[in-house]
Amino acid sequence: MKSRAAVAFAAGQPLQIVEIDVAPPKAGEVLVKITHTGICHTDAFTLGGEDPEGLFPVVLGHEGAGIVVDVGEGVTSVKPGDHVIPLYTAECGKCEFCTSGKTNLCVAVRATQGKGVMPDGTTRFSYNGQPIYHYMGCSTFSEYTVVAEVSLAKVNPEANPEHVCLLGCGVTTGIGAVHNTAKVAEGDSVAVFGLGGIGLAVIQGARQAKAGRIIAIDTNPSKFALAREFGATDCVNPKDFDKPIQQVIVEMTGWGVDHSFECIGNVDVMRAALECAHRGWGQSVIIGVAGAGKEISTRPFQLVTGRKWMGTAFGGVKGRSQLPGMVEDAMAGRIELAPFVTHTMGLEQINEAFELMHEGKSIRSVVHF
Amino acid sequence: MKSRAAVAFAAGQPLQIVEIDVAPPKAGEVLVKITHTGICHTDAFTLGGEDPEGLFPVVLGHEGAGIVVDVGEGVTSVKPGDHVIPLYTAECGKCEFCTSGKTNLCVAVRATQGKGVMPDGTTRFSYNGQPIYHYMGCSTFSEYTVVAEVSLAKVNPEANPEHVCLLGCGVTTGIGAVHNTAKVAEGDSVAVFGLGGIGLAVIQGARQAKAGRIIAIDTNPSKFALAREFGATDCVNPKDFDKPIQQVIVEMTGWGVDHSFECIGNVDVMRAALECAHRGWGQSVIIGVAGAGKEISTRPFQLVTGRKWMGTAFGGVKGRSQLPGMVEDAMAGRIELAPFVTHTMGLEQINEAFELMHEGKSIRSVVHF
Repeated sequence: MKSRAAVAFAAGQPLQIVEIDVAPPKAGEVLVKITHTGICHTDAFTLGGEDPEGLFPVVLGHEGAGIVVDVGEGVTSVKPGDHVIPLYTAECGKCEFCTSGKTNLCVAVRATQGKGVMPDGTTRFSYNGQPIYHYMGCSTFSEYTVVAEVSLAKVNPEANPEHVCLLGCGVTTGIGAVHNTAKVAEGDSVAVFGLGGIGLAVIQGARQAKAGRIIAIDTNPSKFALAREFGATDCVNPKDFDKPIQQVIVEMTGWGVDHSFECIGNVDVMRAALECAHRGWGQSVIIGVAGAGKEISTRPFQLVTGRKWMGTAFGGVKGRSQLPGMVEDAMAGRIELAPFVTHTMGLEQINEAFELMHEGKSIRSVVHF
Repeated sequence: MKSRAAVAFAAGQPLQIVEIDVAPPKAGEVLVKITHTGICHTDAFTLGGEDPEGLFPVVLGHEGAGIVVDVGEGVTSVKPGDHVIPLYTAECGKCEFCTSGKTNLCVAVRATQGKGVMPDGTTRFSYNGQPIYHYMGCSTFSEYTVVAEVSLAKVNPEANPEHVCLLGCGVTTGIGAVHNTAKVAEGDSVAVFGLGGIGLAVIQGARQAKAGRIIAIDTNPSKFALAREFGATDCVNPKDFDKPIQQVIVEMTGWGVDHSFECIGNVDVMRAALECAHRGWGQSVIIGVAGAGKEISTRPFQLVTGRKWMGTAFGGVKGRSQLPGMVEDAMAGRIELAPFVTHTMGLEQINEAFELMHEGKSIRSVVHF
């Protein structure tokens, strides 16, 4: 079938809105009509050529909401008409990882997903007969996309797709990092580096967890108002100080914060986030995605004196098991999504969404198909 | 009073056996007659000039056993005749750290201990009228030493001091790291980098925890026999491979080990230890002390895909609360100490103990006063 799509033909070039061909779903696959998609920094990261595993041409997008149109052989968990959120972290329920009880990092489709193809090693997308790669198992920048059954969360059809599409990545990652990875407890202190969608979601999660002090850090003070609205108790601009930001945070708190979160993808900030964690037990969670070849570093003394350095992918959330409940939480107002959606637009304006993000003017732009 | 002591007058020079002056204990301090002391890599690290905080002249030594001789004003928890183990990690029971329930890193005497002096800012040691610094709050290379009351664990007087002195550092650190820091569970896989006293203690702790596979790694295969005796199931010499050791361990185990321990102090090995941890949940504990200015590094992807990087000091053990029980464990055979003591000698031979350690010929040398 034909599908309107925003295709990344090459790194560093704007997306092109074209009509691609989408092949029918094979066994274990599902054809989904995407109704809404958010634009995330990770899409920009790959489009910009920083992603060492980036492949082109490709249909980007991994933060979407849609409706099942058709299912391939053997698909039993969803049927046409079901409302779904595509998952870049699948959940097969059977692999060593899914059954461990310790992680959400299912490996069922991992190897092929990383290569931009479906589990059988081929792509369902083509343009003028040339194959186009899939992206993160989702490719939500196409009106019609094909995803693995294990990569779909079935959600309440009454939910507002313009909002809950954000649960496909950023908001879930931030909130999940607080509850599943850091396990923030009542009264704990928290520092959040970077006030984009993920950082603001971390703040929201920290407030849910009844954290005591929530310190929001960004070099762009225009983000502070929304951070406070979500629950930040202190807002800090590193540019206001002539000493390292980790030193500022340690001095503000005495010994550092119980939990810090890096929501940018900058390895220097990752170091600062670790080093402002409390001596003895502070922990720092890396959420941002760093550029190719970038490395984190610190003195081992930071760890020997009790700090823990960890990371999270999709906030530790198991998509098929847990995302439906998070959609219910959003519908009940326990998760606020509306304030994240600062811009909406049609597919034709998708390049503007990237510009707004790069300029720091948007939290999330949501594209309507 | 006069005391025989092995004094480090300058970095990089052998210790000199001299008679120093030891002043009486002040308020909150205790005079201890050291009967036995182990020689640890940390002593060698400071003596070698690698310790950025190293001060000279100094009485080194921090792994000892002794008997209380005299107590200063206000000391109530020990009295003359009590058998004690000096603690380089104090336990005041009152500070924010002691009362947190999250760490053993008491700060009661931390600031002055790091400066080589007693809590009042002065030293009790002198030689020809010149002050000599304390070391790690212990200074067990002097027959008589003065330590803070909060830096003494009172232990069963029936215990063999030649053995239980090792609970003052290496063995406790290794065993504690397994139980308190990593929390190894039955069936877990473990990799141990470096088979000195601490590494062998980690292996012993892992066996206590009923770990499944225990992989012992050292470039000196003469360590393997004792590693197997303590419970190692596999022994690996990185020199036998032409690929990185982390890759070897991942290939041996499928996805890496549940827990890894760095027991050397080499930042490259710290990286290897992290990177051989299991995707999704593996954790790596830094125990070794790295040289001045050395930094650890890795790609943040290692953490984002579920690995945790942490460290431990004194194995997370609270000395005054927990060490007496570990001494009982040693007396009951639940902790084996005898195999660690490969050499014993008088104080006059202490420099030989350092040579044996540097040559990899000893696990622990214990000096008898």
